[in-house]
Amino acid sequence: MKILVTGSAGMIGRKLVERLVRDGRLGTKPIESLTLVDVVDSPIPAGAPYDTKAIVADFSEKGVAATLINNRPDVIFHLAAIVSGDAEANFEKGYRINFNGTWALFEAIRQEAEKGPYKPRFVFASTLAVFGPPFPDSIPDSFATTPTSSYGTQKAMTELLLADYSRKGFLDGVGVRLPTICIRPGKPNKAASSFFSGILREPLAGQEASLPVGEEVRHWFASPRAAVGFFIHAATVDTSALGVRRSMTMPGVSATVGEEIEALRSAAGEDAVALIKRVEDPFVAKIVQGWAGRYAPELAASLGFQAEQNFDEIIKVYQEDEMGR
Amino acid sequence: MKILVTGSAGMIGRKLVERLVRDGRLGTKPIESLTLVDVVDSPIPAGAPYDTKAIVADFSEKGVAATLINNRPDVIFHLAAIVSGDAEANFEKGYRINFNGTWALFEAIRQEAEKGPYKPRFVFASTLAVFGPPFPDSIPDSFATTPTSSYGTQKAMTELLLADYSRKGFLDGVGVRLPTICIRPGKPNKAASSFFSGILREPLAGQEASLPVGEEVRHWFASPRAAVGFFIHAATVDTSALGVRRSMTMPGVSATVGEEIEALRSAAGEDAVALIKRVEDPFVAKIVQGWAGRYAPELAASLGFQAEQNFDEIIKVYQEDEMGR
Repeated sequence: MKILVTGSAGMIGRKLVERLVRDGRLGTKPIESLTLVDVVDSPIPAGAPYDTKAIVADFSEKGVAATLINNRPDVIFHLAAIVSGDAEANFEKGYRINFNGTWALFEAIRQEAEKGPYKPRFVFASTLAVFGPPFPDSIPDSFATTPTSSYGTQKAMTELLLADYSRKGFLDGVGVRLPTICIRPGKPNKAASSFFSGILREPLAGQEASLPVGEEVRHWFASPRAAVGFFIHAATVDTSALGVRRSMTMPGVSATVGEEIEALRSAAGEDAVALIKRVEDPFVAKIVQGWAGRYAPELAASLGFQAEQNFDEIIKVYQEDEMGR
Repeated sequence: MKILVTGSAGMIGRKLVERLVRDGRLGTKPIESLTLVDVVDSPIPAGAPYDTKAIVADFSEKGVAATLINNRPDVIFHLAAIVSGDAEANFEKGYRINFNGTWALFEAIRQEAEKGPYKPRFVFASTLAVFGPPFPDSIPDSFATTPTSSYGTQKAMTELLLADYSRKGFLDGVGVRLPTICIRPGKPNKAASSFFSGILREPLAGQEASLPVGEEVRHWFASPRAAVGFFIHAATVDTSALGVRRSMTMPGVSATVGEEIEALRSAAGEDAVALIKRVEDPFVAKIVQGWAGRYAPELAASLGFQAEQNFDEIIKVYQEDEMGR
């Protein structure tokens, strides 16, 4: 089995590649080769199949998609994208990379199949930013995609293409709408969502963290390990029952900031909680207000996608995977 | 006020242009010029403003969009598209015309605005084919778009673009998801939906008509006159409350074939009903099964979009507009 991973130098991309190398197989089939593509160099984990290579390339540039597809990968994990803030600030660039670039991959696959039968599994990293308010209390699988950002629009458009290319038999697509990943390893960043990880990660390391919103704020979370699990499962799940519903909200933990803090208290005690400093930030609070806190991902759950059950588990995953416990 | 109409030679396009010429104004503003574009010649009704022209052009061809936009129409009615069956049979052509062609119009507008402030109202003819089964009993505005055709996919993707271009302030978009138009004037055609009109139109003219499905089949209808009214209203409605929900299911009459026949009985008597011949067609029946019969178009209704209330009215509109009553 040959596997292509785009965005392989990103946080989730690297973890996905590490897991693939560790497993040595995907589903029941041994992995013969991995092709890792990103705009920066992708690390190749020790123990990777001999025929593994890391390519520095922008998949959205003319001709690159065909180059990536012409060795006929059996599974494509397409994680590469420019992030929400970049896509919002750079309108043309966002559409060129997130939408047209992905379409170029679909087209390369369709054209490759004209040379001889070829229909890879295409796992597409999508986002809950395809949704927009007003939200019901819990967002069902049948909820309309009305994104409030260009990033969300590009992902929602790609979901539609993925479904149509799947329906026509050109590829076998599964779109994975990721929850907010928590606890992200590393340093705080400028994303409005950064604090959801920061208020746990920094105190677990004995450092102060800022909390810019109230404890009542509710959001939808899964660990990096769960995210990797979604992608692996998406690559192997039976898609015959999906019909045209190819993109799915992934399971997650619906929790308030207050519940995050309670889990931190259980895991690391009162001293850790005391490191969280309330620093109200109306700008962040306003952005976060436009996000939903609860989903009903029945389709993904029925297909066996799994996330953590609560924030205690999310913290435990971080301690195991990032703190060496 | 300058108006551009694409698809102006089509059945609805012609009726829209006739109405615009008859009204002489759109909302409160007099119409100074009409530019009519289609791949065949568009009729110019008597009494059209002096500065009216019909252009034979394919809006999706390179450079054409910029040509259409560079005289800065205040309102654009974009009705041109290839139909469902054509888009399904010709995959690349469908995307090129229905999706990329419309995107080219959006881009021409965005680029025109770089020369100086310009933000036209863009009325987009969309379709209920953006939806796919399984359907709830009545489809709400918040229902996900999961099209089961390339045509529906192209329209759903364009709806997303229309919303994002509107959100970014590049244009002021309104997407109009038309019900099945009934009673279509003219002859039966090969569309699977043709019989919905045929079983009324032919008997009203004293001719036989085939009914390929059962009387229990339920569908969603509006007259050609109502469709024109939707477009006119979409061009003038206050969009400030819409947010990113720019495309809306239009009001219509939810009726079964049996209810159509009852309305025919009221309008034209038992002899007319006797002209309907049951000729079961499993192929047509299967296609029609994938269509929904009832919608809850609350957003459009709240904005003042109006259709007929029942099939008696739909027949009356046909008699007035097509039979000279």
